[in-house]
Amino acid sequence: MKTGTLYGVGLGSGDPELMTLKAARILRDTKLIAYFSKGGKTGHARTIMAEYITASHEEIPLVYPVTTEYPVIDPRYVQLIAGFYEDSAQLIAEKLQSGEDVAVPCVGDPFFYGSFMHLYRRLADKFPCEVVAGVPAMAGCWSAAGVPITWGDDVLTVLPATLPEAELLAKLQATDAAVIMKLGKGFTKARRAIERVGMLGRATYIEYGTMEKQKILPLQDKKDDKAPYFSLIIIAGNGRQI
Amino acid sequence: MKTGTLYGVGLGSGDPELMTLKAARILRDTKLIAYFSKGGKTGHARTIMAEYITASHEEIPLVYPVTTEYPVIDPRYVQLIAGFYEDSAQLIAEKLQSGEDVAVPCVGDPFFYGSFMHLYRRLADKFPCEVVAGVPAMAGCWSAAGVPITWGDDVLTVLPATLPEAELLAKLQATDAAVIMKLGKGFTKARRAIERVGMLGRATYIEYGTMEKQKILPLQDKKDDKAPYFSLIIIAGNGRQI
Repeated sequence: MKTGTLYGVGLGSGDPELMTLKAARILRDTKLIAYFSKGGKTGHARTIMAEYITASHEEIPLVYPVTTEYPVIDPRYVQLIAGFYEDSAQLIAEKLQSGEDVAVPCVGDPFFYGSFMHLYRRLADKFPCEVVAGVPAMAGCWSAAGVPITWGDDVLTVLPATLPEAELLAKLQATDAAVIMKLGKGFTKARRAIERVGMLGRATYIEYGTMEKQKILPLQDKKDDKAPYFSLIIIAGNGRQI
Repeated sequence: MKTGTLYGVGLGSGDPELMTLKAARILRDTKLIAYFSKGGKTGHARTIMAEYITASHEEIPLVYPVTTEYPVIDPRYVQLIAGFYEDSAQLIAEKLQSGEDVAVPCVGDPFFYGSFMHLYRRLADKFPCEVVAGVPAMAGCWSAAGVPITWGDDVLTVLPATLPEAELLAKLQATDAAVIMKLGKGFTKARRAIERVGMLGRATYIEYGTMEKQKILPLQDKKDDKAPYFSLIIIAGNGRQI
């Protein structure tokens, strides 16, 4: 019996119209849709793809056992999450084994810090897999902000704000353009590092980029330290502007 | 009289199905399509958007006066190119001034090393502009190659191969994951740098990613030094794989 195909489907940065034609087609044509969600909440993935999910689809929410968005070093957390990915992969494997295709929608691009990668790692050598690239959050954000990010020979560095401050500082110093992701609790640290390397005037803060709640402002005008998971900071390069 | 809107439209990495729904809509609805091309050749942008361009569209090819793909320091080259961008912006400005919308399609994402940025820089403060993010070449490539690029706290560095070898080397040494773009004549240098930092075994070479002519192979299996403009090297990170 022929096994099903696993699709990792990039949904893009948030605006449902920034989904690719291929993603829309696969969501329409794949009956089983498995997606990560947090504690029963309608996540962003579910919202972005809302118009493609009909009564003929079967939804398989994969609900995280813990809801923190931060890397936790605690081995109990790691064990819990590993077990969750293992169980999720097993559940999907059974569907694929029985010949059904499964689509796993992912906000942004599936292979760019995506949870889907944890399923892909466990299933790609056993079943046919296809990954549909999506508009990454950062591209949606710099477009929405009207900030061309890299010119000419500019180097772009993408930094998770979860890194130690000294490392953020060193990496910012060594780059032309930067994107700082996974802000959350790391926001204050990231802003301090940006200020210390003299890049504050060039930095833009974007919250829920290309989504309905979108907020964009110069980083130096942001007065509080609150940054949701779906927020990032961009710093454009200064390269060749002919 | 109301002026027209300038649209920078990301076409995605090459596969026409990796265009966003928004890009497809804007191409369908905008009568004037201005796109960069090289010496009368049907460029990749024209190929990707072929099915959206009908008899009711008016095409304005913006033909580069020189065809080299490399940054040339020669002031005559810079002057020629600057004049070309100036003239192109002027041509588009006239259309916008007369109330017509103009769409400028761009392979990949318009704000990520895109030629469109040179028009945007000249027109964005004079006319309404909207930039539609696209799937960047690198995202199309790592998805096609089946290589998740960044895990956990991985740092991603995007490097143009036009940089000096010592700089490529230093930047590779300081990153977890990397993408090397604009290969062309810089390919040999880039491969040497990757080899010297011990990353050769982790590197994948991708040519015309997600296009019909796509070729993907481990960098260490690539026997020649020929790399077209539409090629890149990806090196995945090794971060937290729970």
